[in-house]
Amino acid sequence: MAWWKVSAARRDVNPDLASERERPSFNVETLTNILDVGVEETRIRRAVVSLVIKDPIFSREYMYFKTPSERYEGAIRNTLHMQRKIKEMGWDENGREVKYIYRALNGETDVVHNVFIKTINALGTDEQIAKWMPLAMDYKILGTYAQTELGHGTYLRGLETTATFDPTTQEFIIDTPQIAAIKWWPGGCNTHTVVVAQLYSNGQKYGIHPFIVQIRSLKDHSPLPGISVGDIGPTMGFEMLDNGYLIMRNIRIPKENMLSRYSQVLPDGSYVKSGSDKINYFSMTAVRVSILRDEVLEALMKACTISVRYSAVRRQSELKPGEQEPKILDYQSQQHKLLPLVATCYAFDFTSKYVNKFNEDVFSEINRENFTSLPELHALTAGIKALATEICSNGVEVCRKACGGHGYSLYSGLPSLYTKVTASCTYEGENTVLHLQGARFLVKCFAAAQSEPLLPTSTAYLSSPSAGECQAMTSADFLNPEVYLKAYECRAYRLIASAANKMQKLVQSGAEQYLAWNSTSVELVKAAIVRVYSYYTRSRLSD
Amino acid sequence: MAWWKVSAARRDVNPDLASERERPSFNVETLTNILDVGVEETRIRRAVVSLVIKDPIFSREYMYFKTPSERYEGAIRNTLHMQRKIKEMGWDENGREVKYIYRALNGETDVVHNVFIKTINALGTDEQIAKWMPLAMDYKILGTYAQTELGHGTYLRGLETTATFDPTTQEFIIDTPQIAAIKWWPGGCNTHTVVVAQLYSNGQKYGIHPFIVQIRSLKDHSPLPGISVGDIGPTMGFEMLDNGYLIMRNIRIPKENMLSRYSQVLPDGSYVKSGSDKINYFSMTAVRVSILRDEVLEALMKACTISVRYSAVRRQSELKPGEQEPKILDYQSQQHKLLPLVATCYAFDFTSKYVNKFNEDVFSEINRENFTSLPELHALTAGIKALATEICSNGVEVCRKACGGHGYSLYSGLPSLYTKVTASCTYEGENTVLHLQGARFLVKCFAAAQSEPLLPTSTAYLSSPSAGECQAMTSADFLNPEVYLKAYECRAYRLIASAANKMQKLVQSGAEQYLAWNSTSVELVKAAIVRVYSYYTRSRLSD
Repeated sequence: MAWWKVSAARRDVNPDLASERERPSFNVETLTNILDVGVEETRIRRAVVSLVIKDPIFSREYMYFKTPSERYEGAIRNTLHMQRKIKEMGWDENGREVKYIYRALNGETDVVHNVFIKTINALGTDEQIAKWMPLAMDYKILGTYAQTELGHGTYLRGLETTATFDPTTQEFIIDTPQIAAIKWWPGGCNTHTVVVAQLYSNGQKYGIHPFIVQIRSLKDHSPLPGISVGDIGPTMGFEMLDNGYLIMRNIRIPKENMLSRYSQVLPDGSYVKSGSDKINYFSMTAVRVSILRDEVLEALMKACTISVRYSAVRRQSELKPGEQEPKILDYQSQQHKLLPLVATCYAFDFTSKYVNKFNEDVFSEINRENFTSLPELHALTAGIKALATEICSNGVEVCRKACGGHGYSLYSGLPSLYTKVTASCTYEGENTVLHLQGARFLVKCFAAAQSEPLLPTSTAYLSSPSAGECQAMTSADFLNPEVYLKAYECRAYRLIASAANKMQKLVQSGAEQYLAWNSTSVELVKAAIVRVYSYYTRSRLSD
Repeated sequence: MAWWKVSAARRDVNPDLASERERPSFNVETLTNILDVGVEETRIRRAVVSLVIKDPIFSREYMYFKTPSERYEGAIRNTLHMQRKIKEMGWDENGREVKYIYRALNGETDVVHNVFIKTINALGTDEQIAKWMPLAMDYKILGTYAQTELGHGTYLRGLETTATFDPTTQEFIIDTPQIAAIKWWPGGCNTHTVVVAQLYSNGQKYGIHPFIVQIRSLKDHSPLPGISVGDIGPTMGFEMLDNGYLIMRNIRIPKENMLSRYSQVLPDGSYVKSGSDKINYFSMTAVRVSILRDEVLEALMKACTISVRYSAVRRQSELKPGEQEPKILDYQSQQHKLLPLVATCYAFDFTSKYVNKFNEDVFSEINRENFTSLPELHALTAGIKALATEICSNGVEVCRKACGGHGYSLYSGLPSLYTKVTASCTYEGENTVLHLQGARFLVKCFAAAQSEPLLPTSTAYLSSPSAGECQAMTSADFLNPEVYLKAYECRAYRLIASAANKMQKLVQSGAEQYLAWNSTSVELVKAAIVRVYSYYTRSRLSD
């Protein structure tokens, strides 16, 4: 039979792939269980994945031929069907099956309503939660989260939308004062939104606070008077999400719509804090920890899997004259591209678990009103988010290019992994800004190290006099992770000391502090990055 | 009047941009003329650009909302309209106006038919050109170029499509012998194609040769018997191009359809070379030179322009407490991202002109049957193509990320610049393969340097005994490009010497030559890259 008549339905494993899978030097199932954190977790994950794959409503067929509108509709359909499944299976909303079904749906869901729900749960009072949650959980209202503006992103203090308290009517007036203040990026077709706005009361400015604003009619979803909404156009990835803009012209909302777990405005307009708003920082660190675990590491793992498998079945060129073309995986240059990235997946998996544990520990402390570790956690998660998103995005792209022309085809799955994961370098804090936040913490610790002997654990080396000495004596020592840790710490110490000295000299020679900081920021970012590497190494040692 | 009622048609230059443009330290028009290579060139370029912008048929409106099919149709429409314009204006097909109109249309044209035309002109005999050119130029036939197969790309010798001469009918039988041999990537809706196939005659294999094959009916464009064609699906970029596959089952074509400028099959099936097929290498080097000039450098220039302008109008965060938010261009970290890339644009512009000149010189020599410089040109253009596509692609992505969230919007123009330019890392030779070609040349020169004092100019340093000495004595010396050139040459020398020694040791200890090469390829690629940097520096010194 001619080759073109052979059925395409044949599903034998490619012999080149099968040969690579023979005789592994480790037990594959054991390693899988380690990554999943337990045999039972592996079982449950596989059951959920299998359920998704078998369900025709979750089918991804023709995905690469769909318009953004069709992808968006598909994401809504997936979300509703997933909710039905969760109820049908009796899964806990916060349980592991739900985590796995989200993962299996690969982002083809509408997550925006979830952000709305989480925000009310985190920042609302008990009464506010009791009022809004039932409506949101039953989809009687649909929510989004409107924070970023056309003119301001990472620098939250610069947001310009205003919420002015009017004591005569006990309302807030929400307003978009100029073009750059238009809310930009919030997604979904919503009836309500959390708006982050600058609070004004009795002529005083109190900084940014969250408010619930109804933007559309519950009858026909038309925008309410004074509201203008629309689409901000297509983006590089995230086709399943529609990003919008929101203009609010002197919209009045009842006083009760300010989310008031941590601060509120009294009827006379006076402003009262309740509890520490440091807890706000904590929700930011939790999101950054989850970006590594749930978004960028997964993208790199998938890209590595695709490109390593491809390299095992693609035969190309000639190594030994006259012999069969080798698998491209057998070329040293291909291994040099892919294998360090496979190793990075494991390293980040351990880091993710380690930092998650640290995050939980700090949360317990916070609940006992102990905020000591919060600055360290904040700086660390900023750095980890920044470096992990950068390394994973770049890594996905290396995997893609390592598949040559086929890596350029959407069918390989690699282009869409990249065009999506690269957004993480910007959202939840632009990476350079985050590294500079990490550097600010390091500079503080470095200054403190001159007087206080007790620094946060992860920066203890800044006060150690042996910081400058590398411990490798033989080439075999370089297989010891302790040596790497010391080397990274030594490098971080030198870089931060050098940056701090440069700043000091600039200030001594008459430069203002802020100019000295700006003139040193390239060095500061470098130091902050090395410090994160040292943390990665530490997380591996802890296992 | 409220801000939202201000007309969007206001086109004042943003004052922050205007202030940056005040008092430049150089004459902008003079520099423009230098880049264009002459006042007259600037004038003509602007005239062509203005013609394109004013013409509604060339409009790019709604481009980011079009489906791939609509983009493809638009590219066809642009191409036909452009041809009309060229005739109407009386422009020379090979003249500069045509170069500028292609550039102004920004790739939204159908270039595939052009490749068909160029191939026949380059590889056809005078009779073949006389037969096919009038048909192609008048669009009576539409052509494409089918070389890459599902299973083979950069490694051309591995192509599997066969062209077997049948002396009884004086025909070639073109055949796709298995799945991996399906032609993959050729684009356009065509009636004819150049097929690159392995030539067999009288039971002998003669390597790859080009053949003209008709694939569709000239009446209704339906595929001819034995031909299967279709779309290979969407890709990461190049939405305006439709990439296809082509299966040929024992298709018979007349003997005259083998493009025979450099080799032919006689009626008895004997194979005759006419002229040197080294000239084939030359057309490859010409394409690689043009990739730098016409594709990747332009993408980086555009990305730099967009991101630097954005950085001048975007104000964000706080440098000096209490003062207006600074332009992000005033942050050292932003300058550190963008300004080296602006410098890279100038460096590559000079390199491009320099290597273009070298290419022309070698072409003149070849026409005098002197092929001495061809290996050097081949290695150099391979390296320049590989490094320039990598640097420009990565640079575009740095520019995009430097614009934060707005760089993720397609409206910024940056995502589509990246998703297109990154393909250049793969097409016309995968970059790692090209660097290894460059390394092979370097290793040869290094070996020759031990015996022959005369090496090609660009590798003369390999035989110089002072190669290991760096000439910088003071920090001011680092402003001298001669110092960089020596430093790069010194580094290339050391790396190639080290790689050659490693290979020699491996062979001496019993490894086969090909394994020694493979085990050294990471070092070899490194050496090849540094060698290209030294060439970039040399090209700047030559101006």
